[in-house]
Amino acid sequence: MSNTSWLDQIKWNGDGLVPVVTQDSQTRRLLTHAWINRDALALTLAEGRAVYWSRSRQKIWRKGEESGNVQKIRDILLDCDGDTVCYLVEQIGGIACHTGRESCFYQKLTTVEGKPSWQITDPVLKDPSAMYGTRS
Amino acid sequence: MSNTSWLDQIKWNGDGLVPVVTQDSQTRRLLTHAWINRDALALTLAEGRAVYWSRSRQKIWRKGEESGNVQKIRDILLDCDGDTVCYLVEQIGGIACHTGRESCFYQKLTTVEGKPSWQITDPVLKDPSAMYGTRS
Repeated sequence: MSNTSWLDQIKWNGDGLVPVVTQDSQTRRLLTHAWINRDALALTLAEGRAVYWSRSRQKIWRKGEESGNVQKIRDILLDCDGDTVCYLVEQIGGIACHTGRESCFYQKLTTVEGKPSWQITDPVLKDPSAMYGTRS
Repeated sequence: MSNTSWLDQIKWNGDGLVPVVTQDSQTRRLLTHAWINRDALALTLAEGRAVYWSRSRQKIWRKGEESGNVQKIRDILLDCDGDTVCYLVEQIGGIACHTGRESCFYQKLTTVEGKPSWQITDPVLKDPSAMYGTRS
């Protein structure tokens, strides 16, 4: 008897997924781009933390379950077409990326002498081997 | 003889596309979520304005070509996996959404008496029929 009409309003793709864009709720910095299914979004609301669907592992993925870098949910937004979600979060530990950086978007297109290339803009704040133990 | 290695470093999907997240460069508000192919991204860099690939129309789409709501490019970012791009833009006219709102993400999940629903948070700033003429 649970109310799921809010989930029915989302236009899930053929694989039952939609993209989710995650931003820091304070700075609005873009942290990650990932994917969710119905279960992941329902769990995100129920647990108040960002939950995703891992396409590579084909399973529900609670952000921070291994690294401790949990994302506490502040708001959940939906776009005009109903096919993209946004999580506004408090990023515990200040690290969203598996490389140990604040954000996954740490490469900026930079043109030097007419040649564009991707330049790294952010430092590694924590060694990934320290975040994930032997799984580094 | 043009340098395209920066485009080769992107992990285009089976359809030759990757998602692109567009943010206001000043406020960092999330404006849109769309898709690009190689040509769209190369044009974005060359022209200094956001260019996308329309999956529904299967064609290059210069943002603002009909509405006038051009997005001037301030920065182009790439994520850790190389499969998502971010455009940081100056949104001309202050309207990114085809509904006439600042952002496409104008619906917020709100729970009242245990019932979650999507509530509209933003006003329509301009009538879409005025933006698109007879195509409204």
